Amino acid sequence: MTDPAAIARESPGFRGCGIVTLLTDFGLRDPFVGLMKVQVHARCPGARIVDLTHELPAFQPAAAAFWLERARHWCPAGTVHVAVVDPGVGTERSLLAAEAAGQAFLGPDNGLLGAVLASESSRVCSIDLDSLGRFGLGAPSATFHGRDVLAPLAAELAAGRVHVADLGPTVATWTPSPLPPARPRGVGRWEGEILLVDRYGNAFTNLPPPPHPGAAAVLVAGRRLPVVRTYGEAPAGAAVALANSFGVLEVAVVKGDAAAELGLRAGDPVVLERA
Amino acid sequence: MTDPAAIARESPGFRGCGIVTLLTDFGLRDPFVGLMKVQVHARCPGARIVDLTHELPAFQPAAAAFWLERARHWCPAGTVHVAVVDPGVGTERSLLAAEAAGQAFLGPDNGLLGAVLASESSRVCSIDLDSLGRFGLGAPSATFHGRDVLAPLAAELAAGRVHVADLGPTVATWTPSPLPPARPRGVGRWEGEILLVDRYGNAFTNLPPPPHPGAAAVLVAGRRLPVVRTYGEAPAGAAVALANSFGVLEVAVVKGDAAAELGLRAGDPVVLERA
Amino acid sequence: MTDPAAIARESPGFRGCGIVTLLTDFGLRDPFVGLMKVQVHARCPGARIVDLTHELPAFQPAAAAFWLERARHWCPAGTVHVAVVDPGVGTERSLLAAEAAGQAFLGPDNGLLGAVLASESSRVCSIDLDSLGRFGLGAPSATFHGRDVLAPLAAELAAGRVHVADLGPTVATWTPSPLPPARPRGVGRWEGEILLVDRYGNAFTNLPPPPHPGAAAVLVAGRRLPVVRTYGEAPAGAAVALANSFGVLEVAVVKGDAAAELGLRAGDPVVLERA
Repeated sequence: MTDPAAIARESPGFRGCGIVTLLTDFGLRDPFVGLMKVQVHARCPGARIVDLTHELPAFQPAAAAFWLERARHWCPAGTVHVAVVDPGVGTERSLLAAEAAGQAFLGPDNGLLGAVLASESSRVCSIDLDSLGRFGLGAPSATFHGRDVLAPLAAELAAGRVHVADLGPTVATWTPSPLPPARPRGVGRWEGEILLVDRYGNAFTNLPPPPHPGAAAVLVAGRRLPVVRTYGEAPAGAAVALANSFGVLEVAVVKGDAAAELGLRAGDPVVLERA
Repeated sequence: MTDPAAIARESPGFRGCGIVTLLTDFGLRDPFVGLMKVQVHARCPGARIVDLTHELPAFQPAAAAFWLERARHWCPAGTVHVAVVDPGVGTERSLLAAEAAGQAFLGPDNGLLGAVLASESSRVCSIDLDSLGRFGLGAPSATFHGRDVLAPLAAELAAGRVHVADLGPTVATWTPSPLPPARPRGVGRWEGEILLVDRYGNAFTNLPPPPHPGAAAVLVAGRRLPVVRTYGEAPAGAAVALANSFGVLEVAVVKGDAAAELGLRAGDPVVLERA
Repeated sequence: MTDPAAIARESPGFRGCGIVTLLTDFGLRDPFVGLMKVQVHARCPGARIVDLTHELPAFQPAAAAFWLERARHWCPAGTVHVAVVDPGVGTERSLLAAEAAGQAFLGPDNGLLGAVLASESSRVCSIDLDSLGRFGLGAPSATFHGRDVLAPLAAELAAGRVHVADLGPTVATWTPSPLPPARPRGVGRWEGEILLVDRYGNAFTNLPPPPHPGAAAVLVAGRRLPVVRTYGEAPAGAAVALANSFGVLEVAVVKGDAAAELGLRAGDPVVLERA
């Protein structure tokens, strides 16, 4: 449906590797995620689908934007990411298809893709819902674009049959990332906030890990915490901050639940003081 | 083990495409679902397994029957569906294998398959538990037929090595669908009920979507709600009814939780008035 | 990187079949499991990944050790198991790679693999974290060895490119199983305890199923329960014990929730009296 040579010229970066990730707020109680997967498998038999998570807070794109931007760094080139936290389904919001850093990203234009698009030079297209017939898709339902639009298009991208640029007109603007940046305040001081709390009660912040942990401290919930290199440097029960495995500073209680024990929630202020 | 020509004659409709769906009440806390999947992969290396859901209410086949009947419409021909909500495991209830609309269905004879079998002409067989050795299966445990019988047979069907008709004698009766039908009451009035509440608090009903939404209204929980075409037609916080992406009328609150805000539960009465 | 003939001599038992199971306490709220899977798929395109469970109690290896030891019996030779319940991440605890009964096992040395290693003759190696570069891995993070070490190595094992013995020096000791054994007390009497409660409220014990159920009884929570062969032998609501589908004696309430109705918890004492 497109001149393959043109595709190759336009987008040297993306070539599907068969991995398709899903990131939604659909939960696992209903078969919503499963029916997205069936659309992918039916169109791309070699696809390997990976759930990043489906338990994101309903109607809040911030945690999703954070995880999508972070997760992509551990995914190979050729991965297709489908992200659906979409309170605007059924309104006039666009669906975006983007290509960045050798990967493809599909999702609503509500900030979800904003953090990725801010950090990499990208080609971004607005999916043309009136031209889905070209890809063998029927008219989408009004309320489940994940199943009816994004999953089938992810399969087409993963299978190498279509390219991001085929999906609609290139756009130059989109909803920016909802993630708050950390703000430098004077020499060696950063003001940030808690972005999310994980399953263990560790609080992820938007603060940059200090290059010299031992010389830094974190102020949070009225306390001053040491910055350590690993959990093993402090005794069980100690509250600490450390650079976590996703490259951000996290507040943790060794073998405990920092969010519960310190009373932390997304949005709470956190300050980093580097010596 | 069967004359292939006979299979082709008997059942033009089913030819495994490799997709196997699972729909259970097993939850994800224990490795029950995982061990079903291992049985499928071990016997059918090309299988692509999709979880529809495992969070169905334990011991209530109605929601499962609804989702199985709806989900199949978004699955390709050749899909094998395994459904296990089975409070009768360990009693004399039969296990059924059915072929309908080019797909195969496996599950206990307790109504779970009833909605599918009511809506399509089907071949239905009662799985002969005494002949499982023919398919290389050992004697099943008394309490986990999903792992010991249904998953391995799903793999055999998906791999094209056996056919529904090989699994046991054809039966002419089975437990009917537990889903209550909506009842017409006079001109343009339907009485129905809420079938289930989804992850967002949307209440799925058994009412048929009206052909002219603007001219209809839904009576529920002491309120009269407009029927809209899409969430975008009403402001945030508004309670509405609309044809949802599974083809039934649903009660929703725009960007809210209808079940919580209106106090809705499965089984509650709902009335549709078309003008 | 190793003489293949040497591998064949050393380990006749293991040859990857492509199935990789995951057993963690990571939950599904965050993309931790998903990012492990991406590492497997990126390195072993033919892998079929199966979640055993990710909802194990955080920081308690006992239930994980039980399920890993039981689940392996329903997995084919060539399966690679990755188990991560790892409160010691970031400390000096080792990571183990083991080969037993034709399967491979990866996990921290905290007892998680103990039940498997106690029941089968095994080759056990301590993963050399300083030599991961040989397998194309970068330096691992301090806190997410599941993603950075175990998942990529599982892929290498599943793909047949490396062998357990390549991963580090053979060790002769490891942390033993945390599972308490049942104790014989006189003729036909066993004292045990409840190991875990499943999604249905059934309480799994460490008691051996009696060869003659009808002649045995179980004492638990101040009650004396009959031992039956299957749920169907007792009326709805009856409390019973029976050999469950994982080969241990379980306390159940027919079509009910034994843990809730009898007040059972992991660690509670249970006695089996065979006549």
